[in-house]
Amino acid sequence: MKLLYPTTLRLDPALISGFPTVTLHAYDAKAPTLPADLLDAEILVTWANSPANLSFAAKNLHQLRWIQSLAAGPNDVLAAGFDTSRVQVTTGSGLHDRTVAEHTLGLLLNAARRFYEMRDYQLRGQWPGHLGGPQPDREPGTFRTLRDARVLIWGFGNIAKCLTPHLTGLGATVRGVARSPGVRGGIEVFSEDSLPRLLPETDALVMILPGDASTRHALNAERLRLLPKHAWVVNVGRGSSVDEDALFDALEKGEIGGAALDVFEQEPLPEGNKLYGAKNLILSPHAAGGRPQGAEELIVDNLRRFLAQQDLRNKL
Amino acid sequence: MKLLYPTTLRLDPALISGFPTVTLHAYDAKAPTLPADLLDAEILVTWANSPANLSFAAKNLHQLRWIQSLAAGPNDVLAAGFDTSRVQVTTGSGLHDRTVAEHTLGLLLNAARRFYEMRDYQLRGQWPGHLGGPQPDREPGTFRTLRDARVLIWGFGNIAKCLTPHLTGLGATVRGVARSPGVRGGIEVFSEDSLPRLLPETDALVMILPGDASTRHALNAERLRLLPKHAWVVNVGRGSSVDEDALFDALEKGEIGGAALDVFEQEPLPEGNKLYGAKNLILSPHAAGGRPQGAEELIVDNLRRFLAQQDLRNKL
Repeated sequence: MKLLYPTTLRLDPALISGFPTVTLHAYDAKAPTLPADLLDAEILVTWANSPANLSFAAKNLHQLRWIQSLAAGPNDVLAAGFDTSRVQVTTGSGLHDRTVAEHTLGLLLNAARRFYEMRDYQLRGQWPGHLGGPQPDREPGTFRTLRDARVLIWGFGNIAKCLTPHLTGLGATVRGVARSPGVRGGIEVFSEDSLPRLLPETDALVMILPGDASTRHALNAERLRLLPKHAWVVNVGRGSSVDEDALFDALEKGEIGGAALDVFEQEPLPEGNKLYGAKNLILSPHAAGGRPQGAEELIVDNLRRFLAQQDLRNKL
Repeated sequence: MKLLYPTTLRLDPALISGFPTVTLHAYDAKAPTLPADLLDAEILVTWANSPANLSFAAKNLHQLRWIQSLAAGPNDVLAAGFDTSRVQVTTGSGLHDRTVAEHTLGLLLNAARRFYEMRDYQLRGQWPGHLGGPQPDREPGTFRTLRDARVLIWGFGNIAKCLTPHLTGLGATVRGVARSPGVRGGIEVFSEDSLPRLLPETDALVMILPGDASTRHALNAERLRLLPKHAWVVNVGRGSSVDEDALFDALEKGEIGGAALDVFEQEPLPEGNKLYGAKNLILSPHAAGGRPQGAEELIVDNLRRFLAQQDLRNKL
């Protein structure tokens, strides 16, 4: 059987070979079609495919049984019209944990250490003296360091687990919010019912929610009002989970300390959108992930399971 | 005997009381003079004093025997004219390790994740699409993540030891350079003789050198040329350790990837200085430290030693 893998990232086919009944075939995931001799493929690995490419695959890969997306949230595959009664879809969940965690840590430090504000001064040729020199240490009602900062991670999955030790290592106190509460890796994870109590005790709220109907505008005006005036919001999940109008108002009125957004309701954020100029807003262009790591291992594990007719990992 | 402590930071006198022969007196470190009833003090704690205040103290505290500076490098005290044959000076080394380490980590992530460049686009109302979406993972000849990045820390003291686990936790490989080579906390530390071999193998060079004559322009044109074209320089030590003209040239010619500077040969960096507009230069206004942590414990330890006529910690 044929497994098609994309050339949109560096995959080493040697690391997924060794299955005698499977042949490996590279394909151009940006091309609007697929070569005729690959249309009997049963397995498709996707990464950064063009919509036309996926749509062509959905219409023409009649023997397709399994799609391994390398994206954490394969919205592109789901939108392409594959017959999911026949085709299993597995995600790249786990391949992005470290890179998203690193970016999130960077956004938190950018916010706390005010690198964005320093940049504004630098571009005007001015020394941002008020941000340097002797400074108060961990003053209450401020977010100027992760040491002793109270970080709340909303959406406590694998990325949160990967991020947490970096935050606690810098001295932060971390708590989580997720659908199923409990203690995970030593971190207390609460249900959303506890948000009214947790949000007022938060210096930095990190959102890592998936983008589905149930999370739409999870952070709304009402919940934003529960945050302290100095609290920052960092969103590296999906843009739809934040009500951007409410966030803009909170920023402009100084009701929160700031927001660092890697995701937006519409991407690219349209030119002219008011968020570009919002007070204390750090814009990052969906850059947290986008670099799958260890893809071959996931493909091999799932290929073995697929051939053995076992349950696949990361099933949607 | 009288111990004078400054009101330029929040010190809790309760945490340094309990020595029956010592009385504690707050003083205004910004005032040009000291009150007449404090001029018989034997011990002076300094933090962010005005030059006039220190100069007055040097001339008028005739019974002074010990100055506990809370700065890592008490250049201000040394410049004030105290009679060091009579007055011991101890530094605040160790009080700034965590806060400088956090800032340095932030600067490294700012460089790797290109937050400064994202900011430039945001201020123009443009989406920096080339920095987001699907990206190559750990491409050789780039510095886009700390994962698998080769970080060289020049000046491997307490700050470096505090910084290292944060870098290795993100997947970086860390080596050090210091006057005395050896293995420290599992990290290989080389002598400066090894720089010609180490610099070409470096993705990010972190400089934490003190500011004395021996370190002046330690990073000069010749050594800059040894760095790979994509390598970043981060300086959180002292500005004098970098030849700024040579650095500017290297940045403008694209001979290095960029530089994140928290310290400068002259601070504040004068308006009109060419570094403000240098390519891929991140300016931070001497903001890494400036927040002594655990000052009371250091004062107590040294006060006990002082009274017992033992060697003081952090003697200059």
